[in-house]
Amino acid sequence: MRVKPEVQEALAAGRPVVALESTIIAHGLPRPDNLRVAREIEAVVRAHGAVPATIAILAGEVHIGLEDAALEALAASGEVAKCGVRDLPAVLARGEDGATTVAATSHLAERAGIRVFATGGLGGVHRGAASTFDESADLGTLARVGICVVCAGVKSILDIPATLERLETLNVTVLGYGTDTFPAFYLQSSGVPITWRVDSPQGVADVLRAREEVGAPGSVVVANPLDEPMDADLHDRVLREGLEAAAAAGVTGRDVTPFLLERFHSQTEGESLRANVRLVLRNATLAAQIAAAL
Amino acid sequence: MRVKPEVQEALAAGRPVVALESTIIAHGLPRPDNLRVAREIEAVVRAHGAVPATIAILAGEVHIGLEDAALEALAASGEVAKCGVRDLPAVLARGEDGATTVAATSHLAERAGIRVFATGGLGGVHRGAASTFDESADLGTLARVGICVVCAGVKSILDIPATLERLETLNVTVLGYGTDTFPAFYLQSSGVPITWRVDSPQGVADVLRAREEVGAPGSVVVANPLDEPMDADLHDRVLREGLEAAAAAGVTGRDVTPFLLERFHSQTEGESLRANVRLVLRNATLAAQIAAAL
Amino acid sequence: MRVKPEVQEALAAGRPVVALESTIIAHGLPRPDNLRVAREIEAVVRAHGAVPATIAILAGEVHIGLEDAALEALAASGEVAKCGVRDLPAVLARGEDGATTVAATSHLAERAGIRVFATGGLGGVHRGAASTFDESADLGTLARVGICVVCAGVKSILDIPATLERLETLNVTVLGYGTDTFPAFYLQSSGVPITWRVDSPQGVADVLRAREEVGAPGSVVVANPLDEPMDADLHDRVLREGLEAAAAAGVTGRDVTPFLLERFHSQTEGESLRANVRLVLRNATLAAQIAAAL
Ligand SMILES: [Mn+2]
Ligand SMILES: [Mn+2]
Ligand SMILES: [Mn+2]
Repeated sequence: MRVKPEVQEALAAGRPVVALESTIIAHGLPRPDNLRVAREIEAVVRAHGAVPATIAILAGEVHIGLEDAALEALAASGEVAKCGVRDLPAVLARGEDGATTVAATSHLAERAGIRVFATGGLGGVHRGAASTFDESADLGTLARVGICVVCAGVKSILDIPATLERLETLNVTVLGYGTDTFPAFYLQSSGVPITWRVDSPQGVADVLRAREEVGAPGSVVVANPLDEPMDADLHDRVLREGLEAAAAAGVTGRDVTPFLLERFHSQTEGESLRANVRLVLRNATLAAQIAAAL
Repeated sequence: MRVKPEVQEALAAGRPVVALESTIIAHGLPRPDNLRVAREIEAVVRAHGAVPATIAILAGEVHIGLEDAALEALAASGEVAKCGVRDLPAVLARGEDGATTVAATSHLAERAGIRVFATGGLGGVHRGAASTFDESADLGTLARVGICVVCAGVKSILDIPATLERLETLNVTVLGYGTDTFPAFYLQSSGVPITWRVDSPQGVADVLRAREEVGAPGSVVVANPLDEPMDADLHDRVLREGLEAAAAAGVTGRDVTPFLLERFHSQTEGESLRANVRLVLRNATLAAQIAAAL
Repeated sequence: MRVKPEVQEALAAGRPVVALESTIIAHGLPRPDNLRVAREIEAVVRAHGAVPATIAILAGEVHIGLEDAALEALAASGEVAKCGVRDLPAVLARGEDGATTVAATSHLAERAGIRVFATGGLGGVHRGAASTFDESADLGTLARVGICVVCAGVKSILDIPATLERLETLNVTVLGYGTDTFPAFYLQSSGVPITWRVDSPQGVADVLRAREEVGAPGSVVVANPLDEPMDADLHDRVLREGLEAAAAAGVTGRDVTPFLLERFHSQTEGESLRANVRLVLRNATLAAQIAAAL
């Protein structure tokens, strides 16, 4: 595991560090936006007083913190495997490149001693999971790894109520940041209530310290709703039509999610992309503030 | 974590201690029965040679063992949060009061070094969970925490066969105490067979020691059926009518369980309350005997 | 835990050891084939340079590695409990005999320091589990225990796609050995694609070392397809008719799997038995080669 000197020094000195995932760079955003946004995310973390540590696999080695050249290579390549925790050993053994999911980033960040992580949205329970059993490996990893994940909730193309039930069953603490309902990525609210609300980075830091004190395993999810969400009517129309189109085209099971995601990208005239970028930057900002408050 | 001196001394000397949960006091029983019963439970543990350690959060601090004044305050207050493991950090950070569920009590008891815990019934898989994904966080915590939980099984308003499947999948050892079928809280038997029967506190203690020897994580559930159960016809009628009433009133998902529970309280003329109190006292007795046999 | 001297010496010297389960001996194969096959499996492990360690419970004691007399007794007895992890404490406390499942063998092998384990097929998600919740405890144990399990996938009488989803959710690494699809025990392929293919024992060993390096909990499943599978038409007919017969006879829930298995044994004129034996021997061979490559 190669930790970037700047990150190592910050960790050694107890200065704030924020982990960032690389799937958004390699797979989440179109080129060349992805490189620009990856740099903006790092800049926003720095601007709020923390050191960014983007996590990725390069040539079979885990990197905690990337030089700009590595960020550029990752953004340019079309050959980067999407790595969950269980994929890491295979990619390492092959000496290949890999972009880390929420789960793998959480796992590696914790091993490096990083306590706060910013991302876009969590993986969750997929629509139709009652028969397909398609549930993201993010959930189980969040139940095991003791990190604070700042996100904008879960995309509405997943089954949000079922995802929140799983987070409850798995004992993952969920905090609403300035909200009493769980956000839905592109939308400010999924309508599903959450029990615990906090209104400041210090409030989150207090909960994180209490979690360590009480020895509870697992993560604290900070659900940070987007301030300028997608137009709700547009969102609902694209989602409804996408579900209908999937049914009509015989798209089922685990093919539904990428099908719907592509619809959002292609049918909102940049609205979903704009929302995605904005929420990631907001989450990076809040993560830096929380890391500074710890 | 504040451990009551009496509990601390007993643990240090290797004398028997029984953990007790506080949700039954704050939310499970109506006032003023709750205070009377909480005291009776502690008395019954003492009468069988063990020290009771009721676990709760008071003003943002974990208490292992409560003074009588604290028991009284907990029973009188209407402002006590119900705390699973994931809620503990939030309640601690706010400095509030909290009543601990089976999961949170198990977690905290183990941290304090207590090996036996008495409660009423476990949480489980809810009816309709195939679509709602509503499954109690008790299950996953019992898979992780190495404690002996004495209970009267699971309430029939839950999906008992599915709950037993989950306990199997999660590697939780289930022992029938003097029975070959899993009890159903108000009823002696759910009709679902269980593999392992024990007939004495010593028999349970032997299994607990073997579990430690073999290094298996997770709990041992001792399922102790009620000797004077509810009238089965009354039980079945209230349950059937309750399920019909829920459907008629459009009560679905996670609202079904509290709806049914309320029906049991209001429509059995005290029968369900009497059964609830009796089974908790019996479980506390057995837990004390097991702790003494360890 | 009694470790056979030969196994202990090999482990101390860092020489290759392969764990073997005992359920196949006590419950998986008919007498007297079971004893003959148990000896053949051990012989095949030795022939490929590793020490076999068959794991079982004898008279309430865990044995890692069996003398031939013990193998014989286990094969002859009709009184051996089938032990998952949660059953071990009960069987130990009673001083009885027990045959270990994939889960229990994995758990005990890891405690003994063995890193590779050969079996026939994994347990998984049962058909109809969406309503019955019947999912093998093998899955959760594979998510926790860091062992390499060589198997021929999962029997087609289970829900293979759902099983693979659970393995993904649980972060279990799955490698196809010389294949890009998951094998289906009697059949070379279930048709379900798997991401990571390896083509040599050394390739598996590289992944195992990377897994340890990255600190990921959980197992690596090596899915090794049968080279001379059952006739596909025969397989499909027996499965289809078995499912119809189960429905006609009102066999439901957890009774379906043993019903189907019995149909395979009785209606394929020895074909399913021959396939079962052949795949276990092949897996033992590959496991020995992997252990030697570590
Ligand atoms: Mn999936
Ligand atoms: Mn619930
Ligand atoms: Mn089962």
